[in-house]
Amino acid sequence: MNKQAKINPPKSETDGPKILVINPNSTSTMTDKIAKFVDSHKASGTFVETLNPSNSPPSIEGHYDGAMSLPGLLEKIKWGEKNDFDGFVVACFDDTGIDACREIATGPVVGICEASLHMASMIAHNFSIVTTLPRSIPIIEDLVSKYGMEKYCRKVRSANIEVLALENDETRAQNNLLIEIKSAIEEDRCEAIILGCAGMTDLTHWLSKEAGIPVVDGVVSALKIVEALIGAGLKTSKVGGYSTPIPKDY
Amino acid sequence: MNKQAKINPPKSETDGPKILVINPNSTSTMTDKIAKFVDSHKASGTFVETLNPSNSPPSIEGHYDGAMSLPGLLEKIKWGEKNDFDGFVVACFDDTGIDACREIATGPVVGICEASLHMASMIAHNFSIVTTLPRSIPIIEDLVSKYGMEKYCRKVRSANIEVLALENDETRAQNNLLIEIKSAIEEDRCEAIILGCAGMTDLTHWLSKEAGIPVVDGVVSALKIVEALIGAGLKTSKVGGYSTPIPKDY
Amino acid sequence: MNKQAKINPPKSETDGPKILVINPNSTSTMTDKIAKFVDSHKASGTFVETLNPSNSPPSIEGHYDGAMSLPGLLEKIKWGEKNDFDGFVVACFDDTGIDACREIATGPVVGICEASLHMASMIAHNFSIVTTLPRSIPIIEDLVSKYGMEKYCRKVRSANIEVLALENDETRAQNNLLIEIKSAIEEDRCEAIILGCAGMTDLTHWLSKEAGIPVVDGVVSALKIVEALIGAGLKTSKVGGYSTPIPKDY
Amino acid sequence: MNKQAKINPPKSETDGPKILVINPNSTSTMTDKIAKFVDSHKASGTFVETLNPSNSPPSIEGHYDGAMSLPGLLEKIKWGEKNDFDGFVVACFDDTGIDACREIATGPVVGICEASLHMASMIAHNFSIVTTLPRSIPIIEDLVSKYGMEKYCRKVRSANIEVLALENDETRAQNNLLIEIKSAIEEDRCEAIILGCAGMTDLTHWLSKEAGIPVVDGVVSALKIVEALIGAGLKTSKVGGYSTPIPKDY
Amino acid sequence: MNKQAKINPPKSETDGPKILVINPNSTSTMTDKIAKFVDSHKASGTFVETLNPSNSPPSIEGHYDGAMSLPGLLEKIKWGEKNDFDGFVVACFDDTGIDACREIATGPVVGICEASLHMASMIAHNFSIVTTLPRSIPIIEDLVSKYGMEKYCRKVRSANIEVLALENDETRAQNNLLIEIKSAIEEDRCEAIILGCAGMTDLTHWLSKEAGIPVVDGVVSALKIVEALIGAGLKTSKVGGYSTPIPKDY
Amino acid sequence: MNKQAKINPPKSETDGPKILVINPNSTSTMTDKIAKFVDSHKASGTFVETLNPSNSPPSIEGHYDGAMSLPGLLEKIKWGEKNDFDGFVVACFDDTGIDACREIATGPVVGICEASLHMASMIAHNFSIVTTLPRSIPIIEDLVSKYGMEKYCRKVRSANIEVLALENDETRAQNNLLIEIKSAIEEDRCEAIILGCAGMTDLTHWLSKEAGIPVVDGVVSALKIVEALIGAGLKTSKVGGYSTPIPKDY
Repeated sequence: MNKQAKINPPKSETDGPKILVINPNSTSTMTDKIAKFVDSHKASGTFVETLNPSNSPPSIEGHYDGAMSLPGLLEKIKWGEKNDFDGFVVACFDDTGIDACREIATGPVVGICEASLHMASMIAHNFSIVTTLPRSIPIIEDLVSKYGMEKYCRKVRSANIEVLALENDETRAQNNLLIEIKSAIEEDRCEAIILGCAGMTDLTHWLSKEAGIPVVDGVVSALKIVEALIGAGLKTSKVGGYSTPIPKDY
Repeated sequence: MNKQAKINPPKSETDGPKILVINPNSTSTMTDKIAKFVDSHKASGTFVETLNPSNSPPSIEGHYDGAMSLPGLLEKIKWGEKNDFDGFVVACFDDTGIDACREIATGPVVGICEASLHMASMIAHNFSIVTTLPRSIPIIEDLVSKYGMEKYCRKVRSANIEVLALENDETRAQNNLLIEIKSAIEEDRCEAIILGCAGMTDLTHWLSKEAGIPVVDGVVSALKIVEALIGAGLKTSKVGGYSTPIPKDY
Repeated sequence: MNKQAKINPPKSETDGPKILVINPNSTSTMTDKIAKFVDSHKASGTFVETLNPSNSPPSIEGHYDGAMSLPGLLEKIKWGEKNDFDGFVVACFDDTGIDACREIATGPVVGICEASLHMASMIAHNFSIVTTLPRSIPIIEDLVSKYGMEKYCRKVRSANIEVLALENDETRAQNNLLIEIKSAIEEDRCEAIILGCAGMTDLTHWLSKEAGIPVVDGVVSALKIVEALIGAGLKTSKVGGYSTPIPKDY
Repeated sequence: MNKQAKINPPKSETDGPKILVINPNSTSTMTDKIAKFVDSHKASGTFVETLNPSNSPPSIEGHYDGAMSLPGLLEKIKWGEKNDFDGFVVACFDDTGIDACREIATGPVVGICEASLHMASMIAHNFSIVTTLPRSIPIIEDLVSKYGMEKYCRKVRSANIEVLALENDETRAQNNLLIEIKSAIEEDRCEAIILGCAGMTDLTHWLSKEAGIPVVDGVVSALKIVEALIGAGLKTSKVGGYSTPIPKDY
Repeated sequence: MNKQAKINPPKSETDGPKILVINPNSTSTMTDKIAKFVDSHKASGTFVETLNPSNSPPSIEGHYDGAMSLPGLLEKIKWGEKNDFDGFVVACFDDTGIDACREIATGPVVGICEASLHMASMIAHNFSIVTTLPRSIPIIEDLVSKYGMEKYCRKVRSANIEVLALENDETRAQNNLLIEIKSAIEEDRCEAIILGCAGMTDLTHWLSKEAGIPVVDGVVSALKIVEALIGAGLKTSKVGGYSTPIPKDY
Repeated sequence: MNKQAKINPPKSETDGPKILVINPNSTSTMTDKIAKFVDSHKASGTFVETLNPSNSPPSIEGHYDGAMSLPGLLEKIKWGEKNDFDGFVVACFDDTGIDACREIATGPVVGICEASLHMASMIAHNFSIVTTLPRSIPIIEDLVSKYGMEKYCRKVRSANIEVLALENDETRAQNNLLIEIKSAIEEDRCEAIILGCAGMTDLTHWLSKEAGIPVVDGVVSALKIVEALIGAGLKTSKVGGYSTPIPKDY
C-alpha cells in the first residue's frame, strides 16, 4: 500500500477511527519513532497516519520554537480535515497550538501533555514530569496549571538534554533521563513519572522497569485518549471558544 | 454461553482486555441499562462484564448510601481480581470508594465522575454537571475540587429527581433533566454538559441532540478510559498511597 | 458506676454535653489511651464515652482499611444517636466517614484531622503534619486540600512507623517521631507540628517540650471543638448535603 | 463585686480560663450586648471580661476605621497580658489586628470571622456571609481567602445597614438582615449562614429559627474556640512570624 | 521628519525610551487609533512607533486568528530589535505570543491584557472585563488564571460585537459596550471595568464618565508599564524560560 | 529651593505628577537613601517628596510594628492630600496599611511589595523574594497570596539580618544578602529576585550584577507604577471597598 492510499483508505476498509498524529517539529526520524510506537499501541481497527510539517523548527525548545511551528501544524490539521480524519494528536509536550487546532478540526484534538496528565492522575496520587531542557520547565508548569493539575504534580524537572540528543546522542540522553527519574522518585516522593517529550516514547518500557513505578508516555496516552473520545462519540464543542473561525481574507 | 463462562473466557478467545463494570448500587435494572450501553460502546476485542453487589443500597443518594455500598463494591473488585479482569469501572457518579478499590486491584480503576471530567476538559473550555438530587451536589463539588477541575466546572446542578426515577418515572425524569440542561446552557454559558448519574447513560444521545452541545456520559467515558489505560500498558502505582493493603486479621 | 449506667446518665446528672468518641479501628488498647487523654481534657460537666467497633481493622493504614471500618463506625454513631449523645468525635486522622456520619447524627461530628488543622491555623502561620506510614501521606494531603488548608500546611511527613508500633514498640516509634519532627522544624520552617495519628495523643506534651514549638494533637482538639460547637448551640445543617438519608430497604 | 475586682480575681476563685473579649470599636452599648451573649455562652468555670477601647472609632466600617482602631485594641491586649488573661477574642468581623495581637499576647487570640468560618465548615458543606455595609464585603472576601475558605464560602453579602443601626434602628436592621439571609438561601443554595458583624450576636437565635438553617455568630464561636484552645493547652507559636516584637524606642 | 527617520532617531534626540507598539492584526485604521492614544499618553521624552504586520488576520477573534498572527508579530519584534527599541507592547487583548516575543526581545515585552489586570488590581478590589465576541471569553479567562488574577476578576463578559465593528459600526458597538458595562456594575458588584480589546482605547474616557467607575484600557496601561519597566532598568530575564532561542536552520 | 516650596510647587512649575513617597518607619537615614534612589529614577517632570512619620517604629519587623506605624502613615497621606499630591508610594515591603491609605487618598496608592511582584511577573516566569528577618516571611507569604502571585513566587527567604543592619552594619548585611540570593538561584531555580525591604534599594544594581539575573527593587518599582497609573489617568475606585471613610467623631 503506498502512502497516498494509506492516508485515505475507503471507509469500508476500517471499522475503527482514522487518527492523524502530527509531530509539529520537522525532524522525520523523531516522526518515525513516534509512528512506530503509535502503530504498536493503536487498537485493532484504528487507522493512524503519523507525519510532520516540513516548514517547522527541527525541535521545539521554548515559546519561540512553538510559535514558529504553528503554521505548519495548522496546515496539517486542515489537510487531515479534508481527508476525513476523525481525531488528531499533537505530539509535542508543549501542547503547541491545540486550542487553535480545535477551532478548525471537527473531531477531537488531544495534546500529549494533557493526555499524560489525565492518565497519570488516574493511576497515582501524584507524579513528577521529566523533560529535556530547563527552558521547557516553565512552559510545562504553565500547562500543569492550565489543566488544573498542580495538586497532582510534584515537580517539573529537566534531564538537561537537547530534544535531538534523544535521536543522535542516545546513550547520554538515556543516562541523564534515568538519573533524573531516580532523583524524582527519591526527592519528590512521586508515585509515577511522566516523560516530558514526544521523543522519549521509545524509552517508556525500559524506564518503567528501571524506575519500578509507572512511567507515562504522552504519545501513546494521547493516541489512546483520542480513540477513547471517538469511541464515546465525543467531538469538540462548537458553541463557544472552539467555534469555527470566522472566515477572513488576508 | 452461560454467565460463568462469559465471566472467565479463556484468554485466547479475546484479543482485548477484560473489564469489570460495577454498579455499586443493587438495582439490577440500572445495571442492565449500563451493561447495554457499555456493550454497545466497547472496542472490538474488549470483553466486559457488568454487575452489581446484592448487599448494597438500591440507589446511592448521599454520603451515607455511598459508605454503605463499599463492602459490596470491594467484594466485587476482589472477585474481579481472582477472575483476571484487567481493569475496573466504578459506575456511580460519586466515584464511591475508588481509592480503596485501587489498593486491592492490579489493573486500573476508573470512576465515572473523573472519567467524564477528563474527557469533557479536552473537548470544551468548560462544562456544567447535572445530577439527580440536590443532596448530591456537594459530593460532586468536592470531587471536582479533588480532581483539580474547578476552573473547568461552571456549576453543579440538580434536576431534582431521585436516582430511581430514571428507571421508573422516565418521562418526568427526562423532562426535568432537559429543562435543567437548557438552564445550564443559558445561565452558565457552558460549552458542554456532563450527566451526573450512571442511570442517565441511555439519554446521552437524545440529550446531546436536544441541547446542541456535547453531552458527556460518565459510564461510556470510564469504559473508554479504562480501555485506554490498559492499551497504554498502565496500571495503578503500587509504591505509595495505592500500595496493596497490609494483611490484617479481624 | 457500671458501664451501662455511664453511657446513659440521667440528663440531670450532667450540666454539660454528652460526647461520644469513636476510635474506628478495633484495637482497644488504643481506645483506652484515647479515653485517658479525652477524660483528662474534657471540660467539667462534659460526659464522654470512648469506644471502638469490634468488626473493624485493628489499624487504619490506607484507603482500604478506612473503607472497611465504615460499617462499624456508622453503627456506633447510630448507637450514640439512640443514647442521646450530643456530639461525636471520629478519632482517626483520615477523618474516615465523617461526611456519612454527619448525615445520620443530630449533633455535630468532628474528625481529628480537621479539628487539628483548624486549631493549628489559629496559633501559627503554618504547620507540618507527621503521620505514621508513608501510605497515609496522600490521604492526609487530600484532606488538607479538601479543608482549604494547603496554604497553612508546609508538608505532610511520615515517621515510617506502623500505627500499632505506637502501642507495642513504643521506644522506636517515639524516637522516629521525634527525629521526623525535628526534620520538619529545620527543613519546612514550620511554626507548629500536627500529630497525624490518634495513637500519638499521649506523646503530645513530651513532643512539644522536645520540639520547642506547639504540637497539636487531633484527639484533644476534636474533643474541644465538639464541646465548642455544642456550647455555641450549633448542629449539622440538615437542608443540603448532610440531610438525613432517604430510608431504603436492602 | 466592683469592676477592678472582677478583672483580676485570685486564680483560686476560678477553675477555668480567664478570657478577655475586646470590642475594638468604642460603642459601649455594643460591648454590653456582646458581654451579655458571651456571659450566657461561656463554660462554667470560665471567667470573661468584655470591654472596648475608648480611643477608637464608634464603628468599624472599612479599612481606615480598622487601622484607626489598632492602637486602642493593642493597648487592651497589653492590659490583658498584665492581668493574666489566658486568651483573647477580637470581636470585630474584620479580624482587625489579630496578627499583631498574637505577637504581644501569650495566650491564643481569635478573631470572630475566622472562628465562625472554622465552626461553619464543620457543620455544613458551604455557607454565605451577611455583613452590614457593602464596603465591608471586600475586606471579608480577603479574609475568606486568607483563611483558605473560598471553597466553603458561596457569597459575601451585605444587608446594607450601618453597624450602629443594629443598636439604634433595630427594626429596619433586623428586617434587612432577614431579607438578605433569605436571598442567600434561595440564590446561593447555602447550607448555613454566618453573621458578618459582632453587633448581630443577639439576633442569632431568632434568625436561625426564621431561616431554618444554622446561623453562626462569630462572637460566641470565638469565645468557644478560645476556650477550646486553652483547654487543649495550645498557645500561639513564638518561633516564627508571631514571635514577641523586638523592643524598640520611639 | 519622514517615517524612516522617525523610526530610528539618533539616541541624542531622545532622552527617553524607544517603544514599539505592535497591533498584531492587519487593520491599519485600528493601528492608527492605537497610535493616536499612545502618542497622547506617552511620557515626555518617550519615542513611540506604532505599527502592524501586513500578513496577519484583519482582526483576532479566537485561538486560530491568534496563532495565524504570530509570524507577522514576531517579525516586527525582530525588526524592533534591529532598530534599537527598548521595549515592546503587544496590542491585542489575548496577549498573543508575548512569551515567544520575550525570548527574542532584549527589552521588556508587555501584553495589554496583563498590563490592565495589574493596573486595575492596584486601584480596585475587583473588576469585570468586557470584550468583543463571546468566543474570546475563554481565552481571556485563561489569561486571568495564568496571571493569578482570578480573585480580582468578577466576570469576563462580551458586548457581542465583532472587533471591526469598533471601526466601522461605531454607534452600535459603543452602545452595546455601555449596556454590558452597566450590567457588569449592577450584577457583578465590580469596582472597575477593564476594556477587553485594543480597539476600544478611544472610548475609555467616555465610558469611564458614563460608568462612574474607573475604566482601564490595556493599550495605555501597557505603554505606561513598559515605560515603568524601562525606567526601573528592568529587562526580561534570560536565564530560564525566556532565554534566547537556540539558533536552528529550517 | 527651600523644603516648603519644594513640597507645594505651583502647578505651572511641573509638567508631571506630584508623588509622595512615605517610608512608614521613623529612620531618617533610610528615608534619605530611599529619596536618593527615587530621585534618580523619577521621570523628567515628576516631582517627588520622600518623608517619614516621626511617631513610628524605627523599623518594621513584624505585624506589631506594622500596626504601630499606621497612625503616622495615615497622617502623612492626609498631609499629602491637602498638598495636592497626585499619587503615593508606601515604602515598606509589608505594604503596611495600603488599603486604609486608599480610602483616604484621591490618587493611586501603591505598596512596594505589590509593585515589585507585578513588575517581576512581566519579566520572568517566576521569582524568589529575599527579605531581612525570618519573622517577616509569613507576612510576605500572605501578601503574595493576597495578590494572587503564588504561582510566580518560588520561595520567600530571609537573609537573617535586621532591617537597620542595612544602615549600620552594611558589610555583613550585604554579604548575607548575596549569599541568600545565590542560594535562591541555585535551589529555587528562579528567574528573578525581588528585594524584600525598602532599605535594600541602593543595592539593586550591585546585586543584579553579582546575581546575573534581574533583581527587582520595590521602591523604584512602586515609583514607576504610580507614575504609570497617573499617566494613564487612573485613580482608586471610590464605589466599593475603597470609598471615602464615613466621617466619625471620636
